[in-house]
Amino acid sequence: MAKKFFSEKNLKFTLYDVHKVEDLVKHDKFSDYNKESFDMILDTAKNIGTSFMYPLYSEMDKNAPEYTGTTIKVNPAVRQYMATSGEGGWINAMFPAEHGGQQMPLSIFNACMFIFASANYSLSVYPGLTSGAAGLIYNYGTDELKKNFADKMVTGKWQGTMALTEPEAGSSLSDVKTSAEPSGNGYYLIKGQKTFISAGDHDNADNIIHLMLARIKGAPAGVKGLSLFVVPKYRISGTDSLVFNDVNCAGCYHKMGYRGAPIAQLSMGESDDCHGYLLGEQNLGLTYMFRMMNEARINVGLGAAAISSAAYYAALEYANERLQGRKIDEKNPLNPQIPIIEHADIKRMLLQQRAIIEGSLSLMVYAGKLVDLTGITDGDEKERYELLLDLLTPIVKTYPSEMGIVSTSQAIQCLGGYGYSSEFPVEQYMRDARIHPIHEGTTGIQGMDLLGRKVTMKKGAAVKIYLEEIHKAITEASDFAALKPYASALSDAVSLWKETTNSLLGIAAKGEIDLFMADATLYLELSGIICIAWQWLIQGIAVQKMTNASGSDRNFYEGKLYTLKYFYEYELPKIHGLSMRLKNADGITLKILPEHFED
Amino acid sequence: MAKKFFSEKNLKFTLYDVHKVEDLVKHDKFSDYNKESFDMILDTAKNIGTSFMYPLYSEMDKNAPEYTGTTIKVNPAVRQYMATSGEGGWINAMFPAEHGGQQMPLSIFNACMFIFASANYSLSVYPGLTSGAAGLIYNYGTDELKKNFADKMVTGKWQGTMALTEPEAGSSLSDVKTSAEPSGNGYYLIKGQKTFISAGDHDNADNIIHLMLARIKGAPAGVKGLSLFVVPKYRISGTDSLVFNDVNCAGCYHKMGYRGAPIAQLSMGESDDCHGYLLGEQNLGLTYMFRMMNEARINVGLGAAAISSAAYYAALEYANERLQGRKIDEKNPLNPQIPIIEHADIKRMLLQQRAIIEGSLSLMVYAGKLVDLTGITDGDEKERYELLLDLLTPIVKTYPSEMGIVSTSQAIQCLGGYGYSSEFPVEQYMRDARIHPIHEGTTGIQGMDLLGRKVTMKKGAAVKIYLEEIHKAITEASDFAALKPYASALSDAVSLWKETTNSLLGIAAKGEIDLFMADATLYLELSGIICIAWQWLIQGIAVQKMTNASGSDRNFYEGKLYTLKYFYEYELPKIHGLSMRLKNADGITLKILPEHFED
Repeated sequence: MAKKFFSEKNLKFTLYDVHKVEDLVKHDKFSDYNKESFDMILDTAKNIGTSFMYPLYSEMDKNAPEYTGTTIKVNPAVRQYMATSGEGGWINAMFPAEHGGQQMPLSIFNACMFIFASANYSLSVYPGLTSGAAGLIYNYGTDELKKNFADKMVTGKWQGTMALTEPEAGSSLSDVKTSAEPSGNGYYLIKGQKTFISAGDHDNADNIIHLMLARIKGAPAGVKGLSLFVVPKYRISGTDSLVFNDVNCAGCYHKMGYRGAPIAQLSMGESDDCHGYLLGEQNLGLTYMFRMMNEARINVGLGAAAISSAAYYAALEYANERLQGRKIDEKNPLNPQIPIIEHADIKRMLLQQRAIIEGSLSLMVYAGKLVDLTGITDGDEKERYELLLDLLTPIVKTYPSEMGIVSTSQAIQCLGGYGYSSEFPVEQYMRDARIHPIHEGTTGIQGMDLLGRKVTMKKGAAVKIYLEEIHKAITEASDFAALKPYASALSDAVSLWKETTNSLLGIAAKGEIDLFMADATLYLELSGIICIAWQWLIQGIAVQKMTNASGSDRNFYEGKLYTLKYFYEYELPKIHGLSMRLKNADGITLKILPEHFED
Repeated sequence: MAKKFFSEKNLKFTLYDVHKVEDLVKHDKFSDYNKESFDMILDTAKNIGTSFMYPLYSEMDKNAPEYTGTTIKVNPAVRQYMATSGEGGWINAMFPAEHGGQQMPLSIFNACMFIFASANYSLSVYPGLTSGAAGLIYNYGTDELKKNFADKMVTGKWQGTMALTEPEAGSSLSDVKTSAEPSGNGYYLIKGQKTFISAGDHDNADNIIHLMLARIKGAPAGVKGLSLFVVPKYRISGTDSLVFNDVNCAGCYHKMGYRGAPIAQLSMGESDDCHGYLLGEQNLGLTYMFRMMNEARINVGLGAAAISSAAYYAALEYANERLQGRKIDEKNPLNPQIPIIEHADIKRMLLQQRAIIEGSLSLMVYAGKLVDLTGITDGDEKERYELLLDLLTPIVKTYPSEMGIVSTSQAIQCLGGYGYSSEFPVEQYMRDARIHPIHEGTTGIQGMDLLGRKVTMKKGAAVKIYLEEIHKAITEASDFAALKPYASALSDAVSLWKETTNSLLGIAAKGEIDLFMADATLYLELSGIICIAWQWLIQGIAVQKMTNASGSDRNFYEGKLYTLKYFYEYELPKIHGLSMRLKNADGITLKILPEHFED
């Protein structure tokens, strides 16, 4: 295992120097915090990540969860980590004080999640899922649901899940079939199947609480008829005793990676005795789910960037230590070999990884801060942040996820044959990273969300705000001689993006919606590259302001500027090919028919 | 498992309609063959692949080879497959009749290898490695070496290997340290370590014969002092008895994929009793190795394309069967869901895979035919084919290997969560494919080979021939109205490639060799895309000539044309970003120093 899996210096640079998250504490909501307490929190996260989570990384992959016939056996460390998370206030970190929470800014909390996920992504999801589920109960549940379930979940003794997917309803949630029948006694009888439920069952929690989408008998078809239920594995009977609630674990998927977390198949109501408790109002299930979807999707992007970070530091350590080959103009084989980090192609591969990871992290922190700002503003200002967040979310989710495959694959390539062998953990990072373009809405779904919904919502209001923000950065960067060429390149890129967007909107205006949407995935890719170029320019501005840096700080800032240059010179030019394609929309993917794939 | 893992129709289209490999039989060397016998050979390969190899695909991954302390335990099917390969004449298929071989054209043999590798890549390498090693012995060995070793290897009872890599000498073969000391008795005493040796030891062959690079005591440093030895695990003593030859198996790598084939660590001469037999002349070891390197590298590209093919057909079958979602303009959730192959984004992902696989396969067959042509021509004509083959080899090796990662990853994406789970074999294809940019010379090495050696050799003679060939295709395609736009696009792409190449050569002319070579990997990527665009145009021409096709043939040709269009509209535009970068060579990967990666 490499010594390092994330950069504390870069994390703090991103939080404080780039995004000024310490400014949040000026507001009442976050006034219990200050920069010192943020640093203490980050320190604690670093300690947990380093001493507890990271050493378990390979082991949890090699000894993956196993289905026992009734539940799923996971690594015993899960119980300890959940307890640590409960006691340390990590599960309720984001909750308001009125619900007993820490009221921590998401931007800081996500920085901690980045540490946890880079240390051991699979382990990090157990409390994360619990927090998401408990948060829904605190937001929409009755006092009884809060007391009976959420209060137990935040201790880390009970696991929470999000139970949406069914065998016939993956990307298409409107086809969810799990049914809920009013019992007349305040609860509903739940019946159905769920699949791909992360941490959907395991033996290291005393109870599993599912936040489950189901359709109340007689409800409308489609997503408008979905309600959200609290469905525990064991329900509470009498004062405090637990009774099996007919939520049966039917199996566990063996997966390519992300193997430390069990992905379960569930079967509810096999004995017609599965009680579910309605959360909030009938038929608003998807609305509630989607109110936390932005955060869930930021989290996926964060996980992908974090995994890429750990792979990068493994590759970097290897590149510094591995001797192989000589300089291109060194012909004498008797001279010693050099560390491979001195080869241009290795530096290119390292720069690509760093550009992806640090560009993504900057966007993550920015998105987290937007969530924080929506919580401390109102009126037009709040709406501005909300629109921006809505627009950016598909990019925040997808860019790190798709590029995480590239980044972790480059890490393997830096190690050559050793990268492909499991004696180094690098190949595991690539396997772990591969889940992210799939879960919480596939890349295809994100593309449709960006182009079909976010770009056009409120007559393009979000786009307008976004372009204003980019323009601000371009203007500020233009004041620094070192950044001028990049400010100018970003300005050109934005023009190309606008042209491309308008070309597509022209198709939509003609009513050809299927053609408009056909290459939404590529539009998302194009948008992602430009968005990350913007985040790199913002980082460049922050570096320009660090005029007094010396020593290792100087090296760090120099490295930042090289990585910025790398992004603009190697990654940004990819927009030209993408834009050409998008502007030349001739619908071949609509015209080709299934039978043309026969042969 | 999907029903299909390769397309017989496409294979025959590529062999006969596109590349006219049946014309080879007009020459004496191949006059024992005709199209009917080629078809029979393909049929046999299909039967072996379908009935024997494919059913073992997942099993050989799940029960990977295990090191026993002295050897490596592999699936017992390996012995049977080796015997089948020996008896069926697959190991000596390419050898001349004078060595008892089948004298089969490589283009046909590689078509069979494509079938085997798409059925079960790991299993396919055992006889392939044996054939490569035996071929070297037949070409450069004494009669005694042929009789003692090669003749046994072609039966499939003895395994052959290529033993080049050492712990400190991976990409840098000039640092090979394994030593050979003349014994005075006709053999050398070998001492050293080898690592990452494919099929380097296992319990399903009666003997393992290594073709091993070593340095004779007193030989020059660097690659000029490397000799090639035949080093058996068991040497022959007396008439026919075998004695352990002090070749010790020290371990076996656990790998990300490609797990059906054991990759061994070897230690020779621990008891100072390892005999090696010099092959050919002293200090010419690398020369001999490299005479078979083109074929070995074609083989890697072939394996990558074959694995991608199997993943594609798994994704295609799923896309045809899986019901999910509705058309974009269908709002009624009560209407039934549609097969996902009707979604534009799924068709795009399928087209990308098909474009990569069929484009690569066409290039493979072309490269195989070039090898065949070098064997039946002489003088200028022969040199022409050799130069073209030398130039194309890094592309043939790399394009399918790098794009194989993309292609198999898209196959996973088509299956969503199911693609990530190991109940479908799709995730295994991505793990298996990941080896190809690493073995037989990494992508970085191939880039340096293309730009630093092949483009400039004989004052650009190979480039000149290559451009003539492309120009021929452009001219022919321009006669067909349907292909005119693509002929014109390829012509533009070639101009851009020439501009880019000249820009780089200008840097070299100034003596800035490190800057010239810094982005050789990207130059290879650029060159690969254009080369595959050429292969698609050639396929397009073949389709245009099929004027009488009907029924499923018609669908196949329509599909071909859509895939050609896909390549030109989605893949080819990527050259613009790459070319921009290459023409703007400012050497940031040279300027950034290792300390700038500190943080």
